[in-house]
Amino acid sequence: MNWAVIMAGGYGERFWPKSRRKHPKQLLPIVGDKTMIQQTVERVHPLVGDARIVVVTNHEQAPLVRKQLPRVKHVIGEPIGRNTAPCIGLAAAIIGARDPDAVMAVLPADSYIRDTEGYRRVVGDALKMAAAQAVLLTIGIKPTSPHTGYGYIELGEELSTRLATKFWKARRFVEKPDRKTAEEFLASGDYRWNAGMFVWSFRAVAEAYRKYQPAMWEACLRIQATAGAKTFARVLAREYPKMERISVDYAVMEKADNVVVANGDFDWDDVGDWPAIGRHYEKDGSGNVARGEFVGLDASDCIVVGDSKHLVAAVGVRDLVIVHTPDATLVCHKNDAQKVREIVKKLAAEKKYKRLL
Amino acid sequence: MNWAVIMAGGYGERFWPKSRRKHPKQLLPIVGDKTMIQQTVERVHPLVGDARIVVVTNHEQAPLVRKQLPRVKHVIGEPIGRNTAPCIGLAAAIIGARDPDAVMAVLPADSYIRDTEGYRRVVGDALKMAAAQAVLLTIGIKPTSPHTGYGYIELGEELSTRLATKFWKARRFVEKPDRKTAEEFLASGDYRWNAGMFVWSFRAVAEAYRKYQPAMWEACLRIQATAGAKTFARVLAREYPKMERISVDYAVMEKADNVVVANGDFDWDDVGDWPAIGRHYEKDGSGNVARGEFVGLDASDCIVVGDSKHLVAAVGVRDLVIVHTPDATLVCHKNDAQKVREIVKKLAAEKKYKRLL
Repeated sequence: MNWAVIMAGGYGERFWPKSRRKHPKQLLPIVGDKTMIQQTVERVHPLVGDARIVVVTNHEQAPLVRKQLPRVKHVIGEPIGRNTAPCIGLAAAIIGARDPDAVMAVLPADSYIRDTEGYRRVVGDALKMAAAQAVLLTIGIKPTSPHTGYGYIELGEELSTRLATKFWKARRFVEKPDRKTAEEFLASGDYRWNAGMFVWSFRAVAEAYRKYQPAMWEACLRIQATAGAKTFARVLAREYPKMERISVDYAVMEKADNVVVANGDFDWDDVGDWPAIGRHYEKDGSGNVARGEFVGLDASDCIVVGDSKHLVAAVGVRDLVIVHTPDATLVCHKNDAQKVREIVKKLAAEKKYKRLL
Repeated sequence: MNWAVIMAGGYGERFWPKSRRKHPKQLLPIVGDKTMIQQTVERVHPLVGDARIVVVTNHEQAPLVRKQLPRVKHVIGEPIGRNTAPCIGLAAAIIGARDPDAVMAVLPADSYIRDTEGYRRVVGDALKMAAAQAVLLTIGIKPTSPHTGYGYIELGEELSTRLATKFWKARRFVEKPDRKTAEEFLASGDYRWNAGMFVWSFRAVAEAYRKYQPAMWEACLRIQATAGAKTFARVLAREYPKMERISVDYAVMEKADNVVVANGDFDWDDVGDWPAIGRHYEKDGSGNVARGEFVGLDASDCIVVGDSKHLVAAVGVRDLVIVHTPDATLVCHKNDAQKVREIVKKLAAEKKYKRLL
């Protein structure tokens, strides 16, 4: 059967002050009217159904995840964040115990995709491919710009299938490139963005973990063995923090020789920082994007996020991100949007600001 | 006896969003811990006493003025703003009816002055001068910079007195000069800033109004005649709006030939816009001035006004004014601080923003 694993453990620090530890980016309608995780579930739902969606989040966010996704049965709350490899391993072990023939799509909770049809075709085809072959599929997004903030995957030999989606063997994973390299990647047509979306059978992923992360896989199995039992939380709390904090890319994908790239020819945006929302909303005559009440005077190319009860007025400014919340306001130059994480770190270092995290 | 007339009719639009129609700049602690009008009353109080302070404000603000100044007996609420000439004429007429020998200092409610001693010496000497001679005194502030936002007064012949303060005949009033002219004024030492602070006897000011603004003076006397009676409000509401909207400078001072300049050698700041508060608060290591909670990261030379319950975080910005209030936030380049008035006009044009005025 087809399953979906949704990874929702992040704190979305770059979306502070809207994003908070217990109310992070993926649980907010950063782009769109529903929250990012609700959109992700709706997007994949027709491929898998309510009963076969597993959300892995952290224990602080689990209550809100359950509230936002009342039909999702399986919500695992990590006692501590350990990057994607332990999270995916644990979900796979739990799914495999129930359904050894399972095929699963592993998806980040916070991407924004408009072309739902294209997405379902590609993920659906990848699920079919994964059911037929013991390969590790990654959905490689067709680059639309020489982005230097993403990892890339070089395509190898194309596979012959009867599916609408194209597939290639993966030649190599490439770290975030410099501008010139990214331009070459884009021009060549032989590279795809690594979007952190994977598809594989339980058998294939179990085999890969056993081979490349045997200790981690053993720990995942020990936790899985208590699934549904009273001891689950205790075993999870004991085993999980001991696992290595490592991404599935490093831990498994870059080591494996059976990686296949599915051609993700739908739009995809990881909505990585505040300026990203400018790509998805209509601009006013001066290039400003505003969510909530906004009045500008000689203000251009700003991103304004507030609400309908609070007015943001901007005068004589450009390229600013302005985010209002009831207890904190952010004013940030667009070029420094990545530094919002550092503000969150600064706040975390002061007791009096704990309430704002 | 010595009296003080405090002019408090403005809306302080350049201090939006803190300043609102019913809660304007002069009734806020824009600089200092007490409101500007409370500071003004405390400053002049030893020279005149509780019973001889008259505040002229507008009817919308009168309740809050009374609340902030419980010891002040005379608060006149203008039915409509008519600039300074009608306001000063009416106050003079009311004072003169009670005390024909009155000498009065006429003061804006919203200046900031730290050198209270120097101020009291100058205003005290001016009151003595006004008691002795039928002249119209204006307190000319000694320029400390070639400011192009103020009017200037050219000094004429120095008067010989036994007072500590210097006095000169006024030679002429000069409109806001250009930069070059302002620099010449500053270098010459023969010019003073027109701060809108006046001192004169009832007899001298009555004589001047009779001569240069006879119709206005007649109206002031008609209103005064009902002072203390039930008909006062009705007569005020009928007569006041008919008066010309004109400043006392144009209406009287520039026409008169008995104007004397008192040497205002104390510090004075009209606190005309948000950047002005930067002159009165300590800066952090990056040149930011913050009232309320503030965290900056690569943020410099900003003015931040919030409160102790709301954090403003600024990242990668400089020379901004950021003002937080519960229902509106202003983000404005320092160079555009004068344009805040235009934002207020924009809001006034839209019904849904009435609550923010």
